[in-house]
Amino acid sequence: MVENQAGNPIGWERREQPPFLYRRFQFDGYAQTRVFLEGLAEISKELGCYPDSSFGTTYVNVTIRPRDGERLTEQDAVFAARVTTLFEAPGQA
Amino acid sequence: MVENQAGNPIGWERREQPPFLYRRFQFDGYAQTRVFLEGLAEISKELGCYPDSSFGTTYVNVTIRPRDGERLTEQDAVFAARVTTLFEAPGQA
Repeated sequence: MVENQAGNPIGWERREQPPFLYRRFQFDGYAQTRVFLEGLAEISKELGCYPDSSFGTTYVNVTIRPRDGERLTEQDAVFAARVTTLFEAPGQA
Repeated sequence: MVENQAGNPIGWERREQPPFLYRRFQFDGYAQTRVFLEGLAEISKELGCYPDSSFGTTYVNVTIRPRDGERLTEQDAVFAARVTTLFEAPGQA
């Protein structure tokens, strides 16, 4: 059986105990922060992945935790990669 | 000079050192959480008040800190009241 284990998405911090993927995204102003939050909501809905997020005027912190409470999967890595693209190249996410 | 001091908006927790207003909003599902987040963004933009917020699938925590870093004002209380209305009677916020 192949382990369906998440890799370490570029730019994200990965911890194991407890397992999570974390990244902080910084913006120049609230308008950009808001566009990012809206994109994040779209990707969440599309992929069924709902991270714990926090935000202020110019930042969004995203923490992806295992859906089963135990193990991050490839789905989580795919979600992280989509969020990275949203940040780096919004038009392509 | 009249102190422009915030009151204690109903349902919000108020602390003084450091000063902030805090409230947790709980939802039945992500769809409702998302509608609330969008309303929160609208009110933020309208009133120029940008709280520190965190959210997951079914909750949003809102922390309003002083704009000047020192003192909560009536503007902050007005913002809190609008957010309360958004939660309790979304159509009226």
